[in-house]
Formats: sequence, C-alpha cells, structure tokens
Amino acid sequence: MHQLVNLDLLSDLRGDLLSLEQLKNVPFDIKRVYCLTKLHADHPRGFHAHRQLQQLVICLSGRCRFVLDDGHQKQEVWLESACQGLLLGHSVWREMYDFSEDCVLLVLASDYYDEADYIRDYQEFLAATEIR
Amino acid sequence: MHQLVNLDLLSDLRGDLLSLEQLKNVPFDIKRVYCLTKLHADHPRGFHAHRQLQQLVICLSGRCRFVLDDGHQKQEVWLESACQGLLLGHSVWREMYDFSEDCVLLVLASDYYDEADYIRDYQEFLAATEIR
Repeated sequence: MHQLVNLDLLSDLRGDLLSLEQLKNVPFDIKRVYCLTKLHADHPRGFHAHRQLQQLVICLSGRCRFVLDDGHQKQEVWLESACQGLLLGHSVWREMYDFSEDCVLLVLASDYYDEADYIRDYQEFLAATEIR
Repeated sequence: MHQLVNLDLLSDLRGDLLSLEQLKNVPFDIKRVYCLTKLHADHPRGFHAHRQLQQLVICLSGRCRFVLDDGHQKQEVWLESACQGLLLGHSVWREMYDFSEDCVLLVLASDYYDEADYIRDYQEFLAATEIR
C-alpha cells in the first residue's frame, strides 16, 4: 500500500540538503512537484485516491499524520523528518491530519495534474479496489 | 542573468498549494529536486556557478537573500514567498545569505547532480564569462 523510504541528507554546519533524482532515489520520472504550506491542524486534506499516479511525499518541516487505506485495511503514518519519504502507489485512499504550524509538505508526482486520475468518492474507491 | 517568475498558489481554508509542472510553469524537464533546510543566518551557501544547469528556486517558508553575479554586474534578490520563483540560467555566480530560522528552499533542476558542471572558483568563473 505504501512504503517508507530512507533518504540521505547531506548535513554540515550550513544545514541539511536533501537531493531527489528521478529514476535514482525517486522510482519514477518527476513530471510534477507540488508543495503544501500554511496548513491547519483543524483542516485535514486529501480524501482521494489515484487511479495511476505514483507519488513520493516528504515532510520538509514540522510534522503531520497520514491515514492510508487500500480498501482492505487502514494504516497510520507520521511524517516528521526530511530523511523519510512516503512512497504512495496508485489505489491508496489518503487522508492527512494534525499538521504542525510549521509543516511544509513536498510531493513529487509521476505525472501531470489530471482530474480524471482522481477518485474522490470513497464508495467508488472501495468498488474499484474490489474489481482489482 | 535571472528572472523572477510569478507562481500561482491554490489557496483556501486548508492552506496553500503550489504546483510546478515540467515544461509548463517550469521551463525545463525536472530531473532533480533538492531542498535546503535547517539553514543558518551566519552560514551562507552557494559560491558557485553552473556551466549548463538551469534551476528554479522557491522559498517555501521564511526568507533569504540571493546575490547573483553574471561576471559584469551583481544583483540582490530577497526570496520570501512561495508565489515567487527565481529562475537561474547557467553562468550565474550565486551566493545565499541571511536565512531566516524557518527558511525552506526548494530547487528544481534541469539535470542530475554533476560536479563537472560546477564552477567553484570565482576567478575561473570570471574568465569563463569573458570567453562567452
């Protein structure tokens, strides 16, 4: 359903550098990058799955809680370090909660934004996971 | 030498979303993404130019000051908003200063890391700009 991957940080007195390269430590071509900032603890996000998209999610600052659901079971993951990447395949319903005030989320995606790739209705998602 | 580009944020009650897509609002293929965090005001970074690399730099949180130099003149740019991207072509000497404690820098790059593409000696950089 998901995979937590360790990411190497280049750290020295100047700070931390996280390097992400397509088809190297990112297992797909990076076509889109998006960032979530100014998040609110009381405004969860997500509530969708993707038909095909692969994504790598990294919490660059602060922390937040993911609830992941493959239609059969749910798992909870806290992201709170830039050296941890959350690899999300398709067909995973994701919900994000409990953003810290300083939370900055970076997401690398394997394709362009395409509304047709989203499943935003949970019952439709469950039906799709049964067909697979 | 550089170009400041306006980037649209999708903002609502849940926060801000910045979407960057290759060959759309990013004028090159995104092969590498790197992030700078835990920066220190008294530890500047950069001090190099690139022979070929193109980069788009965005300050996702906090602020910092860039000093850019094409070998003929220097310019200073403050980055302090996720809706502003700094597009850096090749052959620009860049130095970064005055990072706020919460500064998070995101850089999209047109190619993989390649030490041979770096010019780390300022005199060599000046010589290279005269040849061009």
